[in-house]
Amino acid sequence: MSGIVVQKIERAPIAVIDALGQCGVATVHEAQGRTGLLGSALRPIYAGARIAGSAVTISAPPGDNWMVHVAIEQLQPGDILVLAPTSPCEDGYFGDLLATSAQARGCRGLVIDAGVRDLRDLTEMQFPVWSKAVYAQGTVKNTLGSVNVPVVCAGAAIQPGDVIVADDDGVCVVPRAQAETVLAAARAREANEADKRAKLAAGVLGLDMYKMRERLAEMGLKYV
Amino acid sequence: MSGIVVQKIERAPIAVIDALGQCGVATVHEAQGRTGLLGSALRPIYAGARIAGSAVTISAPPGDNWMVHVAIEQLQPGDILVLAPTSPCEDGYFGDLLATSAQARGCRGLVIDAGVRDLRDLTEMQFPVWSKAVYAQGTVKNTLGSVNVPVVCAGAAIQPGDVIVADDDGVCVVPRAQAETVLAAARAREANEADKRAKLAAGVLGLDMYKMRERLAEMGLKYV
Amino acid sequence: MSGIVVQKIERAPIAVIDALGQCGVATVHEAQGRTGLLGSALRPIYAGARIAGSAVTISAPPGDNWMVHVAIEQLQPGDILVLAPTSPCEDGYFGDLLATSAQARGCRGLVIDAGVRDLRDLTEMQFPVWSKAVYAQGTVKNTLGSVNVPVVCAGAAIQPGDVIVADDDGVCVVPRAQAETVLAAARAREANEADKRAKLAAGVLGLDMYKMRERLAEMGLKYV
Amino acid sequence: MSGIVVQKIERAPIAVIDALGQCGVATVHEAQGRTGLLGSALRPIYAGARIAGSAVTISAPPGDNWMVHVAIEQLQPGDILVLAPTSPCEDGYFGDLLATSAQARGCRGLVIDAGVRDLRDLTEMQFPVWSKAVYAQGTVKNTLGSVNVPVVCAGAAIQPGDVIVADDDGVCVVPRAQAETVLAAARAREANEADKRAKLAAGVLGLDMYKMRERLAEMGLKYV
Amino acid sequence: MSGIVVQKIERAPIAVIDALGQCGVATVHEAQGRTGLLGSALRPIYAGARIAGSAVTISAPPGDNWMVHVAIEQLQPGDILVLAPTSPCEDGYFGDLLATSAQARGCRGLVIDAGVRDLRDLTEMQFPVWSKAVYAQGTVKNTLGSVNVPVVCAGAAIQPGDVIVADDDGVCVVPRAQAETVLAAARAREANEADKRAKLAAGVLGLDMYKMRERLAEMGLKYV
Amino acid sequence: MSGIVVQKIERAPIAVIDALGQCGVATVHEAQGRTGLLGSALRPIYAGARIAGSAVTISAPPGDNWMVHVAIEQLQPGDILVLAPTSPCEDGYFGDLLATSAQARGCRGLVIDAGVRDLRDLTEMQFPVWSKAVYAQGTVKNTLGSVNVPVVCAGAAIQPGDVIVADDDGVCVVPRAQAETVLAAARAREANEADKRAKLAAGVLGLDMYKMRERLAEMGLKYV
Repeated sequence: MSGIVVQKIERAPIAVIDALGQCGVATVHEAQGRTGLLGSALRPIYAGARIAGSAVTISAPPGDNWMVHVAIEQLQPGDILVLAPTSPCEDGYFGDLLATSAQARGCRGLVIDAGVRDLRDLTEMQFPVWSKAVYAQGTVKNTLGSVNVPVVCAGAAIQPGDVIVADDDGVCVVPRAQAETVLAAARAREANEADKRAKLAAGVLGLDMYKMRERLAEMGLKYV
Repeated sequence: MSGIVVQKIERAPIAVIDALGQCGVATVHEAQGRTGLLGSALRPIYAGARIAGSAVTISAPPGDNWMVHVAIEQLQPGDILVLAPTSPCEDGYFGDLLATSAQARGCRGLVIDAGVRDLRDLTEMQFPVWSKAVYAQGTVKNTLGSVNVPVVCAGAAIQPGDVIVADDDGVCVVPRAQAETVLAAARAREANEADKRAKLAAGVLGLDMYKMRERLAEMGLKYV
Repeated sequence: MSGIVVQKIERAPIAVIDALGQCGVATVHEAQGRTGLLGSALRPIYAGARIAGSAVTISAPPGDNWMVHVAIEQLQPGDILVLAPTSPCEDGYFGDLLATSAQARGCRGLVIDAGVRDLRDLTEMQFPVWSKAVYAQGTVKNTLGSVNVPVVCAGAAIQPGDVIVADDDGVCVVPRAQAETVLAAARAREANEADKRAKLAAGVLGLDMYKMRERLAEMGLKYV
Repeated sequence: MSGIVVQKIERAPIAVIDALGQCGVATVHEAQGRTGLLGSALRPIYAGARIAGSAVTISAPPGDNWMVHVAIEQLQPGDILVLAPTSPCEDGYFGDLLATSAQARGCRGLVIDAGVRDLRDLTEMQFPVWSKAVYAQGTVKNTLGSVNVPVVCAGAAIQPGDVIVADDDGVCVVPRAQAETVLAAARAREANEADKRAKLAAGVLGLDMYKMRERLAEMGLKYV
Repeated sequence: MSGIVVQKIERAPIAVIDALGQCGVATVHEAQGRTGLLGSALRPIYAGARIAGSAVTISAPPGDNWMVHVAIEQLQPGDILVLAPTSPCEDGYFGDLLATSAQARGCRGLVIDAGVRDLRDLTEMQFPVWSKAVYAQGTVKNTLGSVNVPVVCAGAAIQPGDVIVADDDGVCVVPRAQAETVLAAARAREANEADKRAKLAAGVLGLDMYKMRERLAEMGLKYV
Repeated sequence: MSGIVVQKIERAPIAVIDALGQCGVATVHEAQGRTGLLGSALRPIYAGARIAGSAVTISAPPGDNWMVHVAIEQLQPGDILVLAPTSPCEDGYFGDLLATSAQARGCRGLVIDAGVRDLRDLTEMQFPVWSKAVYAQGTVKNTLGSVNVPVVCAGAAIQPGDVIVADDDGVCVVPRAQAETVLAAARAREANEADKRAKLAAGVLGLDMYKMRERLAEMGLKYV
C-alpha cells in the first residue's frame, strides 16, 4: 500500500482557504457541525500562529522522514504539510533545514502527529508547526511511505487537498468539496457572534439571550 | 443528585482573598500544611496570570456546557468559575463569548478539569484559564448538571465559596473557613523566606542555614 | 546503595562545554550518533534558554528534596543539577530558594524528571529548568538519597560530570570522555548545514541535493 | 493537617453493606444518581473479586507506607482499606505481609490510588486489590500521614466509614448515611432489569421497549 | 452531519469474514500491507476471544449511548458494533442489557473507543468487547449521533460494512472491497509460516533462513 | 554507536540465576537496596510466569526488528532477550516465529519496552513476555541497531549478562557482579519474612512487631 506519490491533487480556491483561516479553528469546527478537529495532543510550537492551507499528506514509517523530502517537491504555495506516522511515534521528523526547503516552496506550516525539533530556528523563521511532541530524536531514510494518500492524523481522516485550519486552539480539517459551504456557515456564525458578544459584554445573561430558562425548568432544574 | 443551583453561598472577605492571591500558589499550599493543590495537568493558557477568588462550582456532564450559563448568573465580582465534569472529558466547554459574559459580571477567571477554546481572544481579554486541555470541541446544552455543589476538580475537593488561588505554578484551594488562618501562616512564611533568600544569595548553604549536617550524619550519609 | 555523596568528580573543559551549548541539543544528539536524548516529557519552564554544563547528579526518594541541599554544596560554576527520583514522582522538589542558592554557586540550571515550582521567580531570575511537571507540591527532608552517583534520568543514563546540553528542543547528555570528539563532529555538522540551508532556501530540493531519486526508485517508489 | 488517627468511625449496617456488594458497582453507581465512581485507572489485580465494606481511609505521603501499619490496627471485620497518596505515586505500598495482617483482622480488600506488589501471594490468599499500578517499588516509614480522615481517592471524595463497593467494573463509594436509600434504589433497579433482560433476549428492541422512536424522530433522526 | 441512520450497507461474504477471523489480527494486518490496526489502547475484556464480522458503525456524543439502541436495530447476524465517540470519552456506553439485545440479533461483539461495564455478565455471556477502558460510568440519551456512517475509531478509518477482525492481539479493519484479496494473501502467509516455524523450531536461525547475513554485512554490522 | 554485536558476554552462574528467580521480583528488589526495577508499564502477557535469566540486550530502531534475528544467534540456554527501542515505540517487534526460534535456543522469555503480538501462540508455547503494549503492528528490517551493548530499558540501566528477574510484579535487573550478594540478602529476607508472616497471621500488629509506636509518638502522631 505504501510507496506511492500522488502528484496531482485538487485544491480549494485560495481565497476560500484564506478566509477559512481568518475564521479560525473553533468557528470552522462549529460551522461544519462540530466535526474535523484533530486531537488536542497537537499543540503549536509558538503562540499566535494562525494559518490555513491545502493538505499535502505524508504517511511515514516510525522514525523515518524520507517521505518528507519527497513531499516537499509536491508542495505549491499555500500548502500545509500533514504527516501521520504509520504507528505511534514522537521522533523529530522535521527541523530547520526541511522548514527552509518547505518555506522556499511556499509552504505555510506543518501538522504532525509526531515530533519536531529546532524550535528556536522555526520560531525565528516563523514557520509554524503543530506537533504531538518536541523531540530532537533524529530519523533515518530507509523505508518508503506515501505522499498525498488519505491518512488519519491525530484521529481525523484527511484527504490530500483538504483544507487545514490551525491556530492557538489546535487544528481542524475541512473536506475540500465542502470548503465554500463551510466558509459561508462560518461567516454567518461570526456575524451572529459579534452581536451576542456586545450583549453579553453589556451584562445580558446567556440564560436570557438564548431563552434557556423555560427549558431548564422543564428539565427539572431547581434553584435552592 | 444533579439539577440543583445553590444561589446563596458564603464567601471569604475580599481582602483576605486578594492577599492570598498575592502570596501565590506555592506559599499558600505550604501554609496550609501542603494541602489543597489541584493536579498538575491543569495549566494556564498564558503565562503570568495570578488570581484569587471565591469558587462558584459547576458539575457538568461530559460535552455539555449548559450549566456554565446557569453558573454565570450566580457570579459576583471577585468570583472564579470552577468546572468539574462528571466523567473525564476534554471538550471545549468555554470560549470567548462565555468569558465576555463572565467578565462582565466581575469573574476573575476559570479553573476547568476539561478543555477551553478561543485562546487568542481569552488572552487579549486577559481572562485567565487553567485547563486540562486546549481543545475547540464544541459542546451541547441537553443535560442538567449542578451549580454551587461540592465537586472534586482535578483531584481536589472544593466547596462553593472556597478560595481559589491560581498562578503559573497551578491551582490551590483554601477552605473558606480557614482563609484567614492560612493567610496568616502564608505571610509568616513569606517574611521568613525573604531573610533566607538573602542568606542563600550571599552563598550560605542550606545545609548550614537549616542545620542539616548533624541529622544527615546520624542518618548515615557518607561523603566519599 | 543510597546515602552516598561523591565529592570529587571529573568535568569536561569549560570551553568544550560552552561550545557544545552553542551547538544545541539537536546538533549534539546527531553528532554523537543519535544518542543521549532525555525523554520528550522534560520541557523548559520558559522559552529561549540554552545552556550546557557538567552534571551534578541527585538520586532522590519520591517527595523528598533533602539531597538537593546536599548537592548544592558540591556545585562548581558551570554545573547543572540533574535530579532523578527513585520512582516516578512529579512533586515540586525545587523552587526559588534553592535556585537562589544554586545560582549563587554558579549553577546554570536544573534538569529534573519530576516537578518544579515558583515559575514566576525562576523566570525572573533567569534560572532555567527542564522538568516533567510544574507542580507546587511540597516535599519533605526525611530520607536519604545520593549525590554524584550514576542515574537514569528521563530514560537516559547519566554519569556525574557528563556534559548536559539543554535548549528549547529538550535535553541531551554527552559522556564526559567523548565531549571533545562530539564537539568536533557537531561543528563539522554545523559547517555542513549552513551550505545546505542556503541551497534549500534557494529552492534546491533535498531529493536532488542528497541525490535520493535513484535509491527511491530502486526501493520501488511510484509516482502516479 | 496530617499526623492524625481517628479511632472511632461510624459504619453502615453490615447487612446493608453486603447487599450493596451483591448489587455490584454499576448498579450501585446508577442507583445513587450516577455518582461515586473512582477513576477507571484503578483495576483489580485478579478477575472475579467482588466485595463491599466500610472504608478505613489512609492519607499517605508518596513512597511511605508507615500509615498502613497504623491503619491496620483500626480495622474491624468487614472493612476495606482505602489509600490515597498526598501526591501522585505508583510505588508498591502494600504486599503479602500487610495483606496477611489485614486479612487476620477481617479486612476484605484494598483500594489504592498507587501501586501494589506480591500479586502471586495476594491472588493465592484471595485478598483483592484495586490499584493504579502493579509495581514492586519498596516504600519507607519516615513521614506521618493520617488515618480515617476524608480523602480524595482516584477522583472520588471518601469519608471514613463510607461504603466501598468493588468488582470487575471498578470501585464505587456510597456515602454512609445514604447506604440504605441507595440499596433500596439498587434493588428496585435490579428487579426492573431482569424483566428487561428477558424481553431483550427474546428480540424486543430497546427502541420499542423504552419507546424511543417518537423522541428520536422529534429530535430529527433521519433514516436513509 | 449527525442524526443519520444508514439502513442498507454492503457486507462481505460471511465465509470470507469467518476465514479472516481464523487468520487472526496479526496475519490479516500483515496481509494487507501492514495497515488497518486500531490503536493498542483497545484491549479485550477477557482473554481468548477471536471474532470477525461486518462493522455496524456508531458515531456517538461523549457520555450518550442513545445511538447504540438505534444501531442494534440495524444489526444482522455476523455483525460487530463499532462505536467511536465524537470526542475522547471513557464512559460505560455498553453493558449487559445492550449485550443481551445485540446478541439476540446475532451480533458477535463490540469494538469501542470508550468504556464498557458489566464485565462479569459479558464474560459469562461470552460477548466479547474490545474497549479503551472498563468504567461503570452511566450515560444519557439526550443527543443524536449517527449509525452506519464513516468513523475514525482508535485511529483507524472504518466504513460501515468493513470487516472487523479482533483477537487477543487487538483489532484490525479490512476494507470490504478488499476482503477476498486480503484473505488470499493471509492464507498464503499462513502456509508460508508453518514451514518457517518448523525450521526455526529445529534450530535453524532466521539469519540463515531469511539469508540476512550478507545484507547485514553490507550495512556495516560488526561482530566484536 | 550502533551496528555492533558483542558476541562474548559474561553470565552469572545458572544456579544463582535460578535461585534469584525463585525469590521473585519484590524480594530481589528489596534485597539490593530497592533498586533495579523496570517501569510499571511493562506487564506480563499472561499471569503466573516467573523467570530469571541472563540479559542478551538489543538496541533497536523504532519499528525495526532486524536486530532480534541477530540477537537470537547470541542466545544461550537460560538467557532472556531484553529489547530497548532507541526512541519510544510500541510496534510488535516480536511474535510466535521469533519466539519459536528463541525458545529453540533455550531462551526463557522476552522483556521489551515496546509491543508484542501473537499472544495466543505465545501463551500456548508458554513463552513469557513483559511488554509495554500488545500491538500487532508489523516491523521492517532496514536499519541496524546493536546487540549486547548497555541499554536503558523502561528506565533501568542494563548491561548484557546482568540477571533479569520477572514475574507478575514486573521486572528487576541485578548487576551480574552482585548476583551472589543479592541472592544471599534475598534469602535472608525470605527467611525473615516467614516468621513475620506467621505472627501477622496470628493477629500480631506490625505496630508492635516492628516496635513502631514509640517513634510514631515522637513524630507527633495523634490518636483522636
